[in-house]
Amino acid sequence: MAMRRAAQQAIQALGSSVSQSRRLHATPGSKKIVGVFYKAGEYSEKNPNFVGCVERGLGIGDWLESQGHQYIVTDDKEGPHCELEKHIPDMHVLITTPFHPAYVTAERIKKAKNLQLLLTAGIGSDHIDLKAAADAGLTVAEVTGSNVVSVAEDELMRILILVRNFVPGHQQVIRGEWDVAAISYRSYDLEGKTVGTIGAGRIGKLLLQRLKPFNCNLLYHDRLKMDAELEQQIGAKFEEDLDAMLPKCDVIVINMPLTEKTKGLFNKERIAKCKKGVLIVNNARGAIMDTQAVADACASGHIAGYSGDVWNPQPAPKDHPWRYMPNQAMTPHISGTTIDGQLRYAAGTKDMLDRYFKGEDFPPQNYIVKEGKLASQYQ
Amino acid sequence: MAMRRAAQQAIQALGSSVSQSRRLHATPGSKKIVGVFYKAGEYSEKNPNFVGCVERGLGIGDWLESQGHQYIVTDDKEGPHCELEKHIPDMHVLITTPFHPAYVTAERIKKAKNLQLLLTAGIGSDHIDLKAAADAGLTVAEVTGSNVVSVAEDELMRILILVRNFVPGHQQVIRGEWDVAAISYRSYDLEGKTVGTIGAGRIGKLLLQRLKPFNCNLLYHDRLKMDAELEQQIGAKFEEDLDAMLPKCDVIVINMPLTEKTKGLFNKERIAKCKKGVLIVNNARGAIMDTQAVADACASGHIAGYSGDVWNPQPAPKDHPWRYMPNQAMTPHISGTTIDGQLRYAAGTKDMLDRYFKGEDFPPQNYIVKEGKLASQYQ
Repeated sequence: MAMRRAAQQAIQALGSSVSQSRRLHATPGSKKIVGVFYKAGEYSEKNPNFVGCVERGLGIGDWLESQGHQYIVTDDKEGPHCELEKHIPDMHVLITTPFHPAYVTAERIKKAKNLQLLLTAGIGSDHIDLKAAADAGLTVAEVTGSNVVSVAEDELMRILILVRNFVPGHQQVIRGEWDVAAISYRSYDLEGKTVGTIGAGRIGKLLLQRLKPFNCNLLYHDRLKMDAELEQQIGAKFEEDLDAMLPKCDVIVINMPLTEKTKGLFNKERIAKCKKGVLIVNNARGAIMDTQAVADACASGHIAGYSGDVWNPQPAPKDHPWRYMPNQAMTPHISGTTIDGQLRYAAGTKDMLDRYFKGEDFPPQNYIVKEGKLASQYQ
Repeated sequence: MAMRRAAQQAIQALGSSVSQSRRLHATPGSKKIVGVFYKAGEYSEKNPNFVGCVERGLGIGDWLESQGHQYIVTDDKEGPHCELEKHIPDMHVLITTPFHPAYVTAERIKKAKNLQLLLTAGIGSDHIDLKAAADAGLTVAEVTGSNVVSVAEDELMRILILVRNFVPGHQQVIRGEWDVAAISYRSYDLEGKTVGTIGAGRIGKLLLQRLKPFNCNLLYHDRLKMDAELEQQIGAKFEEDLDAMLPKCDVIVINMPLTEKTKGLFNKERIAKCKKGVLIVNNARGAIMDTQAVADACASGHIAGYSGDVWNPQPAPKDHPWRYMPNQAMTPHISGTTIDGQLRYAAGTKDMLDRYFKGEDFPPQNYIVKEGKLASQYQ
């Protein structure tokens, strides 16, 4: 702990000294802004509100250009010759998303001499080397809250998909089959089951609220206990000790950020502490799980179902073991990029750019790194 | 209306006269009870609570035999030489389920000279010719409430699956692909959308209660308006005119029984009254929809997603058009046959058999046909 604190102080000291040379807010004149989004191709024309793709670039291109700024959008983000690399030396702002993450490494940050601001259009900045960003005096911010409802709804969908054994049922339909028993022998009601969320921040709380009418036994583990009134209203019981909560849960939902502390948290040993036949939903980050340990536990049946939209790395390669493990209900990273979510995080990104140009502060909850200091949940 | 009333009176008159000869309750001595369930094969051994299959026969075999009754269980229910046909002439009680329905036609009822009681292990008796059963003085009953929670939970799952465009996302994973845009261009939050249930009986109400924290605009159409307090508590607005409700809904959920009135209710004309891009969930009965009209509207995009577990007929043949239509998230008929649901409808069936042997009445809500008279919702 003492070492961690010392490291933080060193980072802060470094951060503030460097931030003087880089300056936190925009210098007068034109800025070069680079946005990395996923490509939509033919789909970009199918929905006028589909702003989160490279073809629409959050719908802020005309606005940026009308203000005299340069706006580069690309999906080409990997390798030494990619489009992103070309712009690293002179860009001032980089906008990224968790859905098609541009990995902002210490090496890239070192090359980015003009860089001042890293914005996540969405939530989560684990694709950014936050220590390196802090050391370089950069500001890192996300659109906090922009898609928390989207993710919480998606988690409840995945819980039900696993509890009901939906996927094998749907596959029967496609294959021309009809075998109710092959589905129903492991299909349950959610009612009466014990559901535990690991993390009860914004998303975790929204999930618990939506679970309340299902008459489950709701548990949550978090750094902080909710105040008694909120706990009562949400109807969930605090579990201070994660490892004591795990064996109680029929369903476990991961709702914490990826940090050095949570990386690989669900390894073989921790999975073994879960109830045999546990169902796990993880829309947080893939790297919180030990990839092979999850695949092995699905194969053995210790995990009876695993669903989520986050992988390590992303995009998931064709040979990622989670594509092939039994009883998975995985998707690509989509839960936070609904059309409604896109409109919200596009608006939030535009708002932060506007504040940046004007030299104003962002909404405080949006900061991941501010003036060389990491936000508390990332420490 | 006058004709309908006259017909009912005639049926009632017929029913009471015939019921004297058949007798409503058990005659002393051994009864022959036939149960038709789906076959579980290898799956029957995988879960000790999997009682709803032919191999376990609701787990009531030992109890029936210990009381001196004969209990035949089979899944062989079709055609003139099936196992069921052999027992029709002398069986006293037939237990069926909606998941693997034994169609009880007027012809079969005519042959069943000893038949007194038709029990549905589950909910719904539309696989039975209720008029013929009433004419013959039979009693028809279901385990009302046994799986309403199961079905309501499943409906909410299907709403989310359609709103989120889950199925194409999962198919990408299986096929080794990663194309977020192909999913997200038509993926939405449920929050803020208008969801209408057609029918707000037991299942519809449970669904509305579970939808409440999602902050949707909730509507319901039913024969009866809820009392003001319940309506307030559930948070849904009554729509007296179905055709006026349809164009308001982003999501429509079918929650009414199949009757002569509701058969084919969703034909081409009625589907055209729905909003373009509507999502439809139907766990009620397949025959409420015009099969081809649904397939055509999915192909044209007027229906943007259709999910349910009920088909016409069941099992759905390999060439059923709903297997091949775009944007479907169908399964075989599973929503009401969760393990929890099975345990409840097995207990409810046993309870009714026990009352039948003792000459006691059933719980009043269980009756579909009692002494030649159809329950009000079937009239």
